[in-house]
Amino acid sequence: MNNLLKQVIDENKKYTNYGQVASYIPELKNAKRSDLGICIIDNNNKIYTAGNYNTKFTIQSISKPIVLAMALMDNDWTSVFSKVGMEPSGDPFNSIMKLETNDTKKPSNPMINAGAIVTTSLIKGNSLEEKEERMLQFFRRLANNDSIGINYEVYKSEKLTGDRNRAMAYLLKNDGFINGDVEEILDLYFKQCSIEIDCVDLARIGINLAMYGVDIESKERLISEKVSRMIKTFMVTCGMYDASGEFAIRVGIPAKSGVGGGVMASVPEKMGIGVYGPALDKKGNSIAGIKVLEDLSEKLELNIF
Amino acid sequence: MNNLLKQVIDENKKYTNYGQVASYIPELKNAKRSDLGICIIDNNNKIYTAGNYNTKFTIQSISKPIVLAMALMDNDWTSVFSKVGMEPSGDPFNSIMKLETNDTKKPSNPMINAGAIVTTSLIKGNSLEEKEERMLQFFRRLANNDSIGINYEVYKSEKLTGDRNRAMAYLLKNDGFINGDVEEILDLYFKQCSIEIDCVDLARIGINLAMYGVDIESKERLISEKVSRMIKTFMVTCGMYDASGEFAIRVGIPAKSGVGGGVMASVPEKMGIGVYGPALDKKGNSIAGIKVLEDLSEKLELNIF
Amino acid sequence: MNNLLKQVIDENKKYTNYGQVASYIPELKNAKRSDLGICIIDNNNKIYTAGNYNTKFTIQSISKPIVLAMALMDNDWTSVFSKVGMEPSGDPFNSIMKLETNDTKKPSNPMINAGAIVTTSLIKGNSLEEKEERMLQFFRRLANNDSIGINYEVYKSEKLTGDRNRAMAYLLKNDGFINGDVEEILDLYFKQCSIEIDCVDLARIGINLAMYGVDIESKERLISEKVSRMIKTFMVTCGMYDASGEFAIRVGIPAKSGVGGGVMASVPEKMGIGVYGPALDKKGNSIAGIKVLEDLSEKLELNIF
Amino acid sequence: MNNLLKQVIDENKKYTNYGQVASYIPELKNAKRSDLGICIIDNNNKIYTAGNYNTKFTIQSISKPIVLAMALMDNDWTSVFSKVGMEPSGDPFNSIMKLETNDTKKPSNPMINAGAIVTTSLIKGNSLEEKEERMLQFFRRLANNDSIGINYEVYKSEKLTGDRNRAMAYLLKNDGFINGDVEEILDLYFKQCSIEIDCVDLARIGINLAMYGVDIESKERLISEKVSRMIKTFMVTCGMYDASGEFAIRVGIPAKSGVGGGVMASVPEKMGIGVYGPALDKKGNSIAGIKVLEDLSEKLELNIF
Repeated sequence: MNNLLKQVIDENKKYTNYGQVASYIPELKNAKRSDLGICIIDNNNKIYTAGNYNTKFTIQSISKPIVLAMALMDNDWTSVFSKVGMEPSGDPFNSIMKLETNDTKKPSNPMINAGAIVTTSLIKGNSLEEKEERMLQFFRRLANNDSIGINYEVYKSEKLTGDRNRAMAYLLKNDGFINGDVEEILDLYFKQCSIEIDCVDLARIGINLAMYGVDIESKERLISEKVSRMIKTFMVTCGMYDASGEFAIRVGIPAKSGVGGGVMASVPEKMGIGVYGPALDKKGNSIAGIKVLEDLSEKLELNIF
Repeated sequence: MNNLLKQVIDENKKYTNYGQVASYIPELKNAKRSDLGICIIDNNNKIYTAGNYNTKFTIQSISKPIVLAMALMDNDWTSVFSKVGMEPSGDPFNSIMKLETNDTKKPSNPMINAGAIVTTSLIKGNSLEEKEERMLQFFRRLANNDSIGINYEVYKSEKLTGDRNRAMAYLLKNDGFINGDVEEILDLYFKQCSIEIDCVDLARIGINLAMYGVDIESKERLISEKVSRMIKTFMVTCGMYDASGEFAIRVGIPAKSGVGGGVMASVPEKMGIGVYGPALDKKGNSIAGIKVLEDLSEKLELNIF
Repeated sequence: MNNLLKQVIDENKKYTNYGQVASYIPELKNAKRSDLGICIIDNNNKIYTAGNYNTKFTIQSISKPIVLAMALMDNDWTSVFSKVGMEPSGDPFNSIMKLETNDTKKPSNPMINAGAIVTTSLIKGNSLEEKEERMLQFFRRLANNDSIGINYEVYKSEKLTGDRNRAMAYLLKNDGFINGDVEEILDLYFKQCSIEIDCVDLARIGINLAMYGVDIESKERLISEKVSRMIKTFMVTCGMYDASGEFAIRVGIPAKSGVGGGVMASVPEKMGIGVYGPALDKKGNSIAGIKVLEDLSEKLELNIF
Repeated sequence: MNNLLKQVIDENKKYTNYGQVASYIPELKNAKRSDLGICIIDNNNKIYTAGNYNTKFTIQSISKPIVLAMALMDNDWTSVFSKVGMEPSGDPFNSIMKLETNDTKKPSNPMINAGAIVTTSLIKGNSLEEKEERMLQFFRRLANNDSIGINYEVYKSEKLTGDRNRAMAYLLKNDGFINGDVEEILDLYFKQCSIEIDCVDLARIGINLAMYGVDIESKERLISEKVSRMIKTFMVTCGMYDASGEFAIRVGIPAKSGVGGGVMASVPEKMGIGVYGPALDKKGNSIAGIKVLEDLSEKLELNIF
């Protein structure tokens, strides 16, 4: 398997020349576009790696399914889904339009920014600090990595340039989908996006979702089976921004990407995969990362459909 | 299993009181709203039935994935997907707006009307008659039922009231996504929607898709493995109109509904399911039919995520 | 005044180098982009001309306010405005989107294609021929020119390439805003767009509107005062496509443009102006023609605000 | 004239029973719905009044054309119109959608909230206090009323409930149409909306605009001729929210309404009119106020078209 991974990385290295590294904040712009790495953890807890699998990067939108899981554990589901929908939107991740044109004005789903701001607002805690701490602990447990933390340079930049997210949040507040202090909710949101991880962390979270929420090593249940299924379902229908449909056709694996260049994939009962390649296509997905997953899906017969 | 099906039908019969039977043409309005039926064909070609499983109804939008399969067999894929997208739209099935606001103006996917008109236009044949004949033959082979035919009353009514589809088709022609005579393409489209089937037919098509395109009985390959996967993927991301996301969460099975009241579901490697219940929710899906599938998914552990 | 007109034409000739002649049909593409002409008829029926004032071109969208006048004379107003709105849309003339997103689904106003198709459908007549004849007679009387007729080459091309208008018309029919045979209504619509006129014709129609509907020469009332005011009001709020607001700011005169390169302006109580310059900006307005009107408005103090 | 005004008020009093007083903040909800008042100041500086002409109310959106005038005096025009457009939008005053779907993302015009926030941001001053002071002084001079001030209860409520405006402002900032501190810009915006005036104030501002910017009493030039024309043009094309087109057809006078119940009208060279009637139609315009203006336009022949 390690050979296979090495081969897949080598063959797809050429795709790191296409697309652009995210540049809306300086910290992301500094990523090395030629980096490409992968880690797979299988259902025997075997770990396979290749390329730049241990380069650190920020999790960005890959935090969305994880925070959704937390929101679903912290709140009753009816209440969560009264504030965020379950439908793919067909629009870019940062689109505002449907908040106005939708009948309900509700964010379409928790994988676009507007919906993710809602789920972040639902995390329980007596203070912002407590919420942040609980969130970090949840990520650490899911990834089995206590050293996971926030990249504060990224966080500060996100906060500084986050006016589009601010616009969404105020609109959500105006329409009753979030309560409380907008800047505080956004602070937590920008922090969750700035959590620093590597491919191994993503693979571990992926295998734990694949095993329906039971940790692959400790056998401890971290997420209920139902929630773990929901998360994977959202990853299929909305996980790759407005290219989710094409990804499902070409690759056929539940996956979530982030503009930091990461992709987390979770093949039910089989494996978790973390991929890293910071050069993105126009929709915000790692170009080489998707190519790697497409090859793997073919070679290892991972397509769930 | 027959007992289980009977029980599930009985328990969900009450939901036939909710929603409305489609009424845009008289033939659909005449459906009996209390009807509820199911057929399952499993991977041993065992057939199980309950309720009004042999009531005939028109296939309507359930024809879309099947005609897509045909279009993908009749044309090279790049050409097909240059004319219709792969993304869920988040809009109602008969929405026109995205044909104007999308960057590409391309129909979002082949499961909404605009996209289905494109795939219909791609069916090969030297004449309208030949196309119609080829289409009917394909449905008959997939359902293993030579008696399948068109309900001409429904077809005539569809044609008479089809001005919204006409509007879409002319827009598609204007933008280069369909070629040839619009009325002829629509004629074929209205015919495909008016094909009459029952739950057994749908279950058979479903199991054949579940077996990756190989007929469950004859073992003959009817559709390639890749195309069968594509079809099921589209059924997950866009099969239940703009309620596909919620259905994937609640039920987790590739499925396609039609306003005639049918739902065809295909559980990879396991079974095909045909359900019939003509009272629809606002988005056009059978209310009781969805409830039946939700129960079955739970009881038989069919969720693929 | 003739000297002034000559000077204004000379000074603005340079702007004929900008923009593009309409090219969606061959007949329009053949227009000579360097042409620039003007005719003014004042409230003493004095006629002033300069440049290519007697070049023939097709009236295109300038027919819209005239056919609206006819629709308002043929029908009661409440009925007309139950089928077409009074509001500028902010969208391009051939936009379809608002027909779906508007609460009423009604075309926003009679100056965009969708709205103009509605007003055309309201012209009375026992046959298409009679409607065509009545329409031509109305244009001839308003322009005091019995030789006005249809350019059949343009008409045929419009009809051949008119699929976008066909899409709109079927949507309008679906939503109950037009009745009767769509192709027949469009036939009349394509004919009205293909009426051939020159700057003198436009100036004469303009002065007759400026004199509240009384013909400047015969003193015969051709249009009621109220209708003449309505027409001029629509010309201000929607006459220059989605650049009407800017034109009102810069020029401040009721005016209507067409993609044939013409602009008809009507200064209440003062004068009618016809301008011709076939090179258009992206919104479909004559670039040099607008410059000429801006200069004239300044020099002759024609701004009504 | 006073008799005519009394008669018009009496005849239209019945329309105060229709529609709703604005209720999004408690202060507006407390307005007396049966109030109806008018003031006319003519080009001889004669003042005519009837009904509740001296009831105080907040200016709300009627501040928009005035602040636009100020922005056009404080900045070069090219710079102003690089940040806000000149086109009617066809959308409600608080719509956000076009900020995303427009090619330029620029607010359509300065009469909708998004555009007005831009013009407010362009008011010069070394501090928020100085800007507020300059703004108040400008309103006072235009209305020739030094007692004009801000209703701080309304201001506080606007600020508290202004999350939709906040959303717009952050989107505008994100897209580069406003600079500086969003909360400070909104503070000024909420203050301008909370300026308290009566019908006499509005009539005075109206006549000064009608006289092309020269104060009717002091003969002092307050606004340039060009700016005064621009303001009236925007009042025609966008002054009555998304009912501007219909108002232009029915009444034909430059006018601006506010959700406080006021309407300011300006008949070029003839008169300024202030009307007050707090019960609004769904688009935010005073129902009885519009009826009064329609009657007056008919009786006094004020239609400019």
